Amino acid sequence: MYAAQYIGNKSFKVVEGHAIAPQEGEVRLNVGYVGICGTDMHIYHGVMDKRVSIPQTIGHEISGVVAEIGKGVNGFAVGEKVVVRPLDWCGDCPTCDAGLTHICQNLKFMGIDTPGAFQSSWTVKARTLHKLPAKVDLKQGALIEPLSVACHDVRRSRLQAGEKAVILGGGPIGQLVAAVAKSVGAEVLVSEPNESRRAFADELGVKSVNPMDTDLAAYVDDWTGTKGADVVFEVSGVLPAIEAMTQIAGRRGRIVMVAIHSTQPPIDLFQFFWKELELLGARVYEAADFDWAIELIASGQIDLTPFISSVSPLADIGNAFASMDGNPQGMKALVECNAQ
Amino acid sequence: MYAAQYIGNKSFKVVEGHAIAPQEGEVRLNVGYVGICGTDMHIYHGVMDKRVSIPQTIGHEISGVVAEIGKGVNGFAVGEKVVVRPLDWCGDCPTCDAGLTHICQNLKFMGIDTPGAFQSSWTVKARTLHKLPAKVDLKQGALIEPLSVACHDVRRSRLQAGEKAVILGGGPIGQLVAAVAKSVGAEVLVSEPNESRRAFADELGVKSVNPMDTDLAAYVDDWTGTKGADVVFEVSGVLPAIEAMTQIAGRRGRIVMVAIHSTQPPIDLFQFFWKELELLGARVYEAADFDWAIELIASGQIDLTPFISSVSPLADIGNAFASMDGNPQGMKALVECNAQ
Ligand SMILES: NC(=O)c1ccc[n+]([C@@H]2O[C@H](COP(=O)([O-])OP(=O)(O)OC[C@H]3O[C@@H](n4cnc5c(N)ncnc54)[C@H](O)[C@@H]3O)[C@@H](O)[C@H]2O)c1
Ligand SMILES: NC(=O)c1ccc[n+]([C@@H]2O[C@H](COP(=O)([O-])OP(=O)(O)OC[C@H]3O[C@@H](n4cnc5c(N)ncnc54)[C@H](O)[C@@H]3O)[C@@H](O)[C@H]2O)c1
Ligand SMILES: [Zn+2]
Ligand SMILES: [Zn+2]
Repeated sequence: MYAAQYIGNKSFKVVEGHAIAPQEGEVRLNVGYVGICGTDMHIYHGVMDKRVSIPQTIGHEISGVVAEIGKGVNGFAVGEKVVVRPLDWCGDCPTCDAGLTHICQNLKFMGIDTPGAFQSSWTVKARTLHKLPAKVDLKQGALIEPLSVACHDVRRSRLQAGEKAVILGGGPIGQLVAAVAKSVGAEVLVSEPNESRRAFADELGVKSVNPMDTDLAAYVDDWTGTKGADVVFEVSGVLPAIEAMTQIAGRRGRIVMVAIHSTQPPIDLFQFFWKELELLGARVYEAADFDWAIELIASGQIDLTPFISSVSPLADIGNAFASMDGNPQGMKALVECNAQ
Repeated sequence: MYAAQYIGNKSFKVVEGHAIAPQEGEVRLNVGYVGICGTDMHIYHGVMDKRVSIPQTIGHEISGVVAEIGKGVNGFAVGEKVVVRPLDWCGDCPTCDAGLTHICQNLKFMGIDTPGAFQSSWTVKARTLHKLPAKVDLKQGALIEPLSVACHDVRRSRLQAGEKAVILGGGPIGQLVAAVAKSVGAEVLVSEPNESRRAFADELGVKSVNPMDTDLAAYVDDWTGTKGADVVFEVSGVLPAIEAMTQIAGRRGRIVMVAIHSTQPPIDLFQFFWKELELLGARVYEAADFDWAIELIASGQIDLTPFISSVSPLADIGNAFASMDGNPQGMKALVECNAQ
């Protein structure tokens, strides 16, 4: 088997290794496709070198096929298609006790804190697996993880059919949130300065606006008949969106904080009081979000094909990362990990 | 009848006037007691002179007795004790249509935007009235309004029996939130630097801590066995509390923003992501909060007597305000409006 190792400074090395036999409770997968996400790009740029232990195999947006089954694992058969929910929770903290394992106090994120999926064989705990119906393509399967992020965000928002949602930021996550929000019957508007990303929204039948040349607050006021947005998803990570979110949310509006802001931006708390706004932090996903994402794909309600910008063999992983670097046209680059 | 008019610059004038006959849908009250709240103190200090039209009768924490009933009003009898929910909503905006009249897009607050209760006779819309059981003292009745604020805050928080709540700020509102939170069976901690206000909490059987000489985050961590607070009420209006709230809230913790912050303080959004926190703006109250507050008093679950620091006749309203100015020992000063 082959594994790609991040070795620091925008570089990968593909090495030959040995498949790891599954221990009790584990399953070994033949990896199908692995997507490159924003966090992988951060690692690539070296900003997370303290958290990953170089050299390390990263990657966590994965589809694959069951290759070998460890003791005590029931319900899986060799050859079945699966995806991995890449969370390793402790099972022993008050949060795990409360069933919120995705925000476990000792959570490890597989592919960042522990070895990841950019390899042809990956051995993981069976509890991380979700079955993919046989008819679902493994390429689309690699996008179940980011789609589950979007499902989680929409679930946190309690978005209903007929409500109006504004999505600040039309990157891969924002566009997936738009797709899921549309699937529940909401009316959706994406605010995104980048022209190619607005064009992407258009192709998916999602209304978009450029906040650089349009007064977003006035636009939303008009679009909602002064009511304001029922739900705002902040998926841009930029300060102007923090200012916009409290302006465009209507009374009792819910704002879902998807983007990861590492600074502490000023927030208009008066609007929280005046309009009884709600701010909801959202972190990755729960098992139910994976189930929902798989259902959305299997039923054909969402087609992820347009999101796939490129497919590269594992040997070309360095080029795949380089091609995504600072390229707003790329939505999702996949690495094919079993294409020997 | 007599009315106290705020005439600017920390001054009141008590004038003789005529009782206003109730029009259709209105009720005239003989006013019992009217409380002085933080907003009244702001008006007293002149900082709201643009919003109130001087000379103006202010006051909105009121109990009274039905004196005269206008046409088309059913269900009230002369002599009945009532309290006023001092909100005047338009009934015609999308928010009113959605049943959220307390955050109506055109809301007028009675006693600020329109004439208030510091007078012996007050004529109001019948839809603002809630009946007070005959056995409830009119003095306690004047505290139903601030108690309803606390009921609304606790309702917004979805606080459950057995959960742990931290209240940042032990002023009148914070102490009432503590009382309501206790009444639902929660464990309560008040963080308050002022010694006399901590002593007040102690007398009510509420645990308190001084955040100036205790590391609040460490204290809460210990108190909750690393879990963090289930609910945090921000009722202080100060910046250190904004910093504390995201530290002490546990995973999926709900933070209720009761205080009115007019600046835009920096907020630790990373904690919102990491712990999936929730921030809930809370503004005044709904009819259900008044019903609950009255029930809490009528059933004896909460006794508001300790909150009443002084009772002054209407003629002494100026002294009543002066005695509350910068006096943390005063919780609630009442003005007796029918003590001719
Ligand atoms: N909560 C979670 O668990 C989770 C999971 C995955 C990603 N994320 C976060 O979600 C965010 C989005 O991820 P992504 O991969 O789509 O990122 P991205 O950087 O590709 O997308 C952000 C988009 O925002 C746009 N933008 C810039 N300025 C804007 C403005 N003023 N108004 C509106 N949009 C503006 C950019 O042009 C870009 O298209 C990131 O912050 C990421 O860290 C969070
Ligand atoms: N949301 C609403 O509809 C509504 C209604 C009424 C009042 N309010 C607001 O609620 C807030 C409280 O009202 P109040 O009348 O009790 O005010 P208050 O000023 O009497 O109480 C604030 C308390 O916070 C304390 N404090 C100061 N620094 C602190 C710190 N670092 N940590 C903890 N506590 C600290 C003060 O000593 C004081 O006791 C105000 O901001 C008021 O405007 C909101
Ligand atoms: Zn755990
Ligand atoms: Zn209205």
